[in-house]
Amino acid sequence: MQNERIERTLQEMKKLGLSQMVVTDPASLFYFTDHYEEPFERFWALLLKADGAHRLVANRLFTLSEVEGVEILRYSDGESGPASLLPYLDKSAPLGVDGSMKARFLLELMEKQGASSFVDASAVMQRVRACKDEKEQEKMREASRINDLAMGEFQKLIRAGITEIGLAEQMLSIYRSLGADGYSFEPLVGFGGNAANGHHGPDQTVLREGQCVLIDVGCKKDGFCADMTRTFFLGEPDEESRRVYETVLAAQLTAEAMIRPGVCLSEVDKAAREVITRAGYGPFFTHRLGHFIGLDVHEAGDVSSHSDLVAAPGMIFSIEPGIYLPGKVGVRIEDLVLVTRDGVEILNRYPKELTVILAEERE
Amino acid sequence: MQNERIERTLQEMKKLGLSQMVVTDPASLFYFTDHYEEPFERFWALLLKADGAHRLVANRLFTLSEVEGVEILRYSDGESGPASLLPYLDKSAPLGVDGSMKARFLLELMEKQGASSFVDASAVMQRVRACKDEKEQEKMREASRINDLAMGEFQKLIRAGITEIGLAEQMLSIYRSLGADGYSFEPLVGFGGNAANGHHGPDQTVLREGQCVLIDVGCKKDGFCADMTRTFFLGEPDEESRRVYETVLAAQLTAEAMIRPGVCLSEVDKAAREVITRAGYGPFFTHRLGHFIGLDVHEAGDVSSHSDLVAAPGMIFSIEPGIYLPGKVGVRIEDLVLVTRDGVEILNRYPKELTVILAEERE
Repeated sequence: MQNERIERTLQEMKKLGLSQMVVTDPASLFYFTDHYEEPFERFWALLLKADGAHRLVANRLFTLSEVEGVEILRYSDGESGPASLLPYLDKSAPLGVDGSMKARFLLELMEKQGASSFVDASAVMQRVRACKDEKEQEKMREASRINDLAMGEFQKLIRAGITEIGLAEQMLSIYRSLGADGYSFEPLVGFGGNAANGHHGPDQTVLREGQCVLIDVGCKKDGFCADMTRTFFLGEPDEESRRVYETVLAAQLTAEAMIRPGVCLSEVDKAAREVITRAGYGPFFTHRLGHFIGLDVHEAGDVSSHSDLVAAPGMIFSIEPGIYLPGKVGVRIEDLVLVTRDGVEILNRYPKELTVILAEERE
Repeated sequence: MQNERIERTLQEMKKLGLSQMVVTDPASLFYFTDHYEEPFERFWALLLKADGAHRLVANRLFTLSEVEGVEILRYSDGESGPASLLPYLDKSAPLGVDGSMKARFLLELMEKQGASSFVDASAVMQRVRACKDEKEQEKMREASRINDLAMGEFQKLIRAGITEIGLAEQMLSIYRSLGADGYSFEPLVGFGGNAANGHHGPDQTVLREGQCVLIDVGCKKDGFCADMTRTFFLGEPDEESRRVYETVLAAQLTAEAMIRPGVCLSEVDKAAREVITRAGYGPFFTHRLGHFIGLDVHEAGDVSSHSDLVAAPGMIFSIEPGIYLPGKVGVRIEDLVLVTRDGVEILNRYPKELTVILAEERE
């Protein structure tokens, strides 16, 4: 068990007045146990107790053998996983549950009166996992380093006539050849107007000269997720596309430059948004500026106007402003950043100045 | 909206005494709306009401535009998704929730006293989705047809010296070239003793003559999932491996032959298990015989000793007995089957007699 991480978790529980908590998110369980299990519909959980008598609950079919320093309660299909926790719960005290626990497990624990009340303790794991320890930081650097190298390979594939899917489907083997374990999420590739649709998946659209090429990609390495976006142009972009690009870049650099411990993340969002609004594109920056990331590609925690988070050392999140002109062009530039003791470390080093790929060079 | 499916859902709700229910599983929402949204941490839900006044809840960032026949309640980041349901809930009646709803949304609805009680209504969606309608059956046939074709291509790649990952990483482009949209799950490829580890993921293990090659794969087509396993041998297997194979095949054929409406699925599991037990391998068949499948690769519903389900027309599930001798050999044979009005349709047609690939032919 990762005891230092558990210690920090118990401290966060204490702040919420919790002496016991059940964690079911598979990434959080990996975080504590170094064992990743995909439980599908089955119950897989860690009970954390203030007195240190933690318990894991695992189905007998799981690959899990042993985890040092914690007893494993095993159940078979046909038996109830949550019920195996009952003897170990303090029924006179509240029980924290992480926000992603499935309703049917929670309702079963409620029905069996496993605790005096049930509390959404999402904030506990969110706070603990938001600040990465040294080991995690090193893993995140490595995943982003591979992502930078991969982006270089992806850029080389851009040429007139390639399809979005034709580009996307070469990515996995490139990532693997660079040492990644796989994707952290399915690649987003959008040409021209498709890039203006934030949720567009790669399709048979063919790249033509003058179009933008938005590539939002990430690999996974040792459980940790990279995530980066670059937008290129095949052939000279028109004037407006160029202005859009430079505006996004200015917003992105503005945001990164102000990150240091103590800065409100809502202020970072505001600053980037102001750059875009002043250029006249405010309504076309349709999403938050960034999200936290680590073992999951989207972790709790926003860089947005609604965020009440303050930058603290160890936090890793994306800074990804974008401008999307429907049917015409979409530009997004995204790096992952790490808040350091006195500033910020940008985990992605891939160039982000406006890059025009000359169509004739790629024939 | 898929009104016939909603009608069947309301009937199942009625059996549980429910006049209102919230569905949050993205696959179930696709099932009703033909729109797939990956909500990540955001709230995405359908409120079903016995009186027909259904409501969808969607974040403004979702790609969703309109869905015919239902009002969409939209919320922004920073607003509560679940709270937008409150004006439409009957607070004096119980509210059903699907089992996969996230605890933090359920706890919020509880705290705001959205209903008189909260009921795990997992069974509703499980029962409705277990029996596929004509359109779904056609999609499942098509996904399995592609999976059969793909298995033929995968078999051709088997040769001495290939690695598990080297085989696995060619699969996605083969699937796509055959018209699939992608994987229904990451391919499992296991050589020799690795095949005896049910959760082994493809690694750098090199194939040697005399080893088994277990390939458990599926593609996704139009949202529907295929899933099939075949086990081949490179070069002549030893006597025990051969006996293991023939035993698994006998168990698999025994199970498929007895499927028809009215048969208890626990009996099907029992029959297959008996074949394996009689051959002396009972302890080495370590999992249930099969699982339901459709929009999700693992849907609720087991073919196992614990199952209380009875085969009914439209049900689609896997039949996948296996024998795993640790460190030595693992054999699993899996088809998807559809229960018809008076029998069974085997959706996978790929040959399953013992197949020895001659090493010299593949040099």
